[in-house]
Amino acid sequence: MSKGLPTRSENYSEWYNEIVKRADLAENSAVRGCMVIKPYGYAIWEKMQRALDDMFKATGHVNAYFPLFVPKSFLEKEEEHAEGFAKECAVVTHYRLKADPNGGLMVDPDAKLEEELIVRPTSETVIWNTYKNWIQSWRDLPLLINQWANVVRWEMRTRLFLRTTEFLWQEGHTAHATKQEAEEETARMLGVYADFAENWMAMPVIQGSKTSSERFAGAEDTLCIEALMQDGKALQAGTSHFLGQNFAKSFDVKFVNKENQLEYAWATSWGVSTRLMGALIMAHSDDKGLVLPPKLAPIQVVIVPIHKTPEDLATISGTVNPIVEELRSLGISVKYDDSDHQRSGWKFAEYELKGFPIRLAIGMRDLENGTVEVARRDTLLKESAPIDGISTFIHSLLDEIQTNIYKKALDFREMNTFRVDTWDEFKAQIEQGGFISAHWDGTPETEEKIKDATKATIRCIPYGGVEEEGQCVFSGAPSNRRVVFARAY
Amino acid sequence: MSKGLPTRSENYSEWYNEIVKRADLAENSAVRGCMVIKPYGYAIWEKMQRALDDMFKATGHVNAYFPLFVPKSFLEKEEEHAEGFAKECAVVTHYRLKADPNGGLMVDPDAKLEEELIVRPTSETVIWNTYKNWIQSWRDLPLLINQWANVVRWEMRTRLFLRTTEFLWQEGHTAHATKQEAEEETARMLGVYADFAENWMAMPVIQGSKTSSERFAGAEDTLCIEALMQDGKALQAGTSHFLGQNFAKSFDVKFVNKENQLEYAWATSWGVSTRLMGALIMAHSDDKGLVLPPKLAPIQVVIVPIHKTPEDLATISGTVNPIVEELRSLGISVKYDDSDHQRSGWKFAEYELKGFPIRLAIGMRDLENGTVEVARRDTLLKESAPIDGISTFIHSLLDEIQTNIYKKALDFREMNTFRVDTWDEFKAQIEQGGFISAHWDGTPETEEKIKDATKATIRCIPYGGVEEEGQCVFSGAPSNRRVVFARAY
Repeated sequence: MSKGLPTRSENYSEWYNEIVKRADLAENSAVRGCMVIKPYGYAIWEKMQRALDDMFKATGHVNAYFPLFVPKSFLEKEEEHAEGFAKECAVVTHYRLKADPNGGLMVDPDAKLEEELIVRPTSETVIWNTYKNWIQSWRDLPLLINQWANVVRWEMRTRLFLRTTEFLWQEGHTAHATKQEAEEETARMLGVYADFAENWMAMPVIQGSKTSSERFAGAEDTLCIEALMQDGKALQAGTSHFLGQNFAKSFDVKFVNKENQLEYAWATSWGVSTRLMGALIMAHSDDKGLVLPPKLAPIQVVIVPIHKTPEDLATISGTVNPIVEELRSLGISVKYDDSDHQRSGWKFAEYELKGFPIRLAIGMRDLENGTVEVARRDTLLKESAPIDGISTFIHSLLDEIQTNIYKKALDFREMNTFRVDTWDEFKAQIEQGGFISAHWDGTPETEEKIKDATKATIRCIPYGGVEEEGQCVFSGAPSNRRVVFARAY
Repeated sequence: MSKGLPTRSENYSEWYNEIVKRADLAENSAVRGCMVIKPYGYAIWEKMQRALDDMFKATGHVNAYFPLFVPKSFLEKEEEHAEGFAKECAVVTHYRLKADPNGGLMVDPDAKLEEELIVRPTSETVIWNTYKNWIQSWRDLPLLINQWANVVRWEMRTRLFLRTTEFLWQEGHTAHATKQEAEEETARMLGVYADFAENWMAMPVIQGSKTSSERFAGAEDTLCIEALMQDGKALQAGTSHFLGQNFAKSFDVKFVNKENQLEYAWATSWGVSTRLMGALIMAHSDDKGLVLPPKLAPIQVVIVPIHKTPEDLATISGTVNPIVEELRSLGISVKYDDSDHQRSGWKFAEYELKGFPIRLAIGMRDLENGTVEVARRDTLLKESAPIDGISTFIHSLLDEIQTNIYKKALDFREMNTFRVDTWDEFKAQIEQGGFISAHWDGTPETEEKIKDATKATIRCIPYGGVEEEGQCVFSGAPSNRRVVFARAY
């Protein structure tokens, strides 16, 4: 490593970019706005995928796969959806190259598609066109299907993980016989996302509904989870949409209900993406690098021997190898780094940078004392622990770290959530960052004016908010509950 | 179900299509040549993925993700590679749609890309362009990276799973410091594929090298596994390529070797795709439907209660529920189908069609006798087994079925492999199907003529073939070993 990371207070944005780069998480590719997810970053994403996939299956969902390409005419069918996505579509117009007389290859003008294909920005249209043939009777419902896929949205300003032209995600698409069932599904999946964010990512989230102007294009209601990053900006970490009968109507998906009448099916869709990687990094990491909650760390424990001679190393390894086996038998992922081409100081810095939750160091003196040095990544504290019983100790320490990282993030959020009742206070506070809980008159016009004046958006109308008489922080009009404002990623 | 499947002997091709459709594996989408992989089909693919992924990781590989889009100029860099793929490329030329004055959406002519992007048909070029920045010294090698991804090749004639415009696959891309290491890797991964085909798919394969005319575009050597389908046609089930220094030279990937000299890196790539689903179906299935090897069956055991009254059902369930628990604790996937809206005859046919390896049926009479009816999908035989100890019995029966399916396929292949020494015999045999082991003079000209005359291709130059003096079956020129011919998918 050349020089240290920029600190968060010096330059938060650079700090983020450098962690992504130096911890080997991702990099920009030669294709504008598309990223390469490097093996270490991908290993974290794989752990996220596995956990989410298990949760989807536990709630009755199955996976399937639908085509990458969306015919242009499909996109046109749901008007709001079309408007929402038209401006960011990668369009396939030809299906062949040929030799260019001037050298190299050129697009073959004879191979022009009759109808252009859009690289999916999301799959509602392709999927509902398919569901048309799958749904005839109420017995065919509900359809509870998820897909893991890549999608493309042509973004003008991109940022690794947070906003990229191509990203990886999952998109659930369900069909139901009743409005109520679909609404319950929408809420259920938001609950799954909140559970994942809090219990796996150790990231507290606010659950709520979007305002109408922030809804997914084509949805009747969009629910979301919102997290607070360390620079005081909000990040939307997952959304679950109640689509009503909009797509069923656009694609003519009718079924015979229990009363023997033809009815349009009710829909939901919900997704999280590699954006969660950005959230994970920004929620917990510090000026030394990445901090990973143990449940998502590809390697939870690294063991570094401290030795001068090959004989010492052999002695240390004699003690360490059985510990490695024992930890693995407890389901803990361990790396024993006995490589010789880097010094232990370099290793310590490297594993801190990459966010390994626990580092054990063990030298000859430790062996004599029957102890090992245990360093926690979350607190950066070190302590000496007896070798005897070390596996059990590590096992519960991992739990403790998971809990502590969550608690730290929760404390941060609580410290940075503000009840604000005047417009002057609002303008001052928004410059400081954090969530602002304030009254709003419920109109898109006011929402827009607040955004223009302060760059703050309504992140959500939170669940469980109390009824409370008040006045809109901007217009002074009456309001009966607070909403959450913030500047956001 | 309306009517029975066509039989294999009546119409093999229709039989295949109908199994794919009726067993809910996949269907054609509205986008030409692209398929929808349905939940049951996808569940099988997920089991394949998991097994392969574990094998890749056990051999030291890690996963990563590279962009979907390949700039046209990248494709041009390796000449043979460019020639091989140019004719089947989906080309993105624009990045935005806009409202069409005549209604709907149109491609926005102002949003034309400066350089066209190809939807990846394979990722050698994108990946080697990335590796350029990752490889400086021999210490950076080997790079052992795999990616799970979708790829697009614009095929004119498509067939579900076997040949589709978009398909899912994994592509391994490795970089090495020496030619020997890269060659060893090429062989190692072919071995992994053969192991997977035989021990998971229960499908015997011949391992060997492709002739120069059948090589991957840009490879110095292509190794393959070839399987025999029940209609006597061959199917290439996986390939592993030794790429020499071709891509390193095209993308200028040099490293400092141990002798402190700059050298180009050595490369391999290897892949299997959703085509394996087609192979799996065609290798084992019968006129009743799909036959799945237990290791890849999403549900290994289905239990169907035979009852007249709800009271009987309750009594039967009292016995079945603990069996279900016991089977699950042994890692066996079980479905207890106590649904009431279909008769047991319908259920039996449905589970046969879908290839569930074992079906248990249990009625009141069975309960009295302390027995259960066990039906094997592979042999279609039924027997009565004691309820006492049924889990252990099922556990070993699953192993037996796995072995038997493999053996059946192996017997079929052996029965349908022919040593042929004359051209007349060759022409007659190729009409009957099967693998033909024959002498070939080693020239692309003869290979081409045989193909033109019979549609047979050289599937591979098999490993472990014996040196044997002979004469080319077509030209009569001297040859010292036999190669494997067949008509192929």
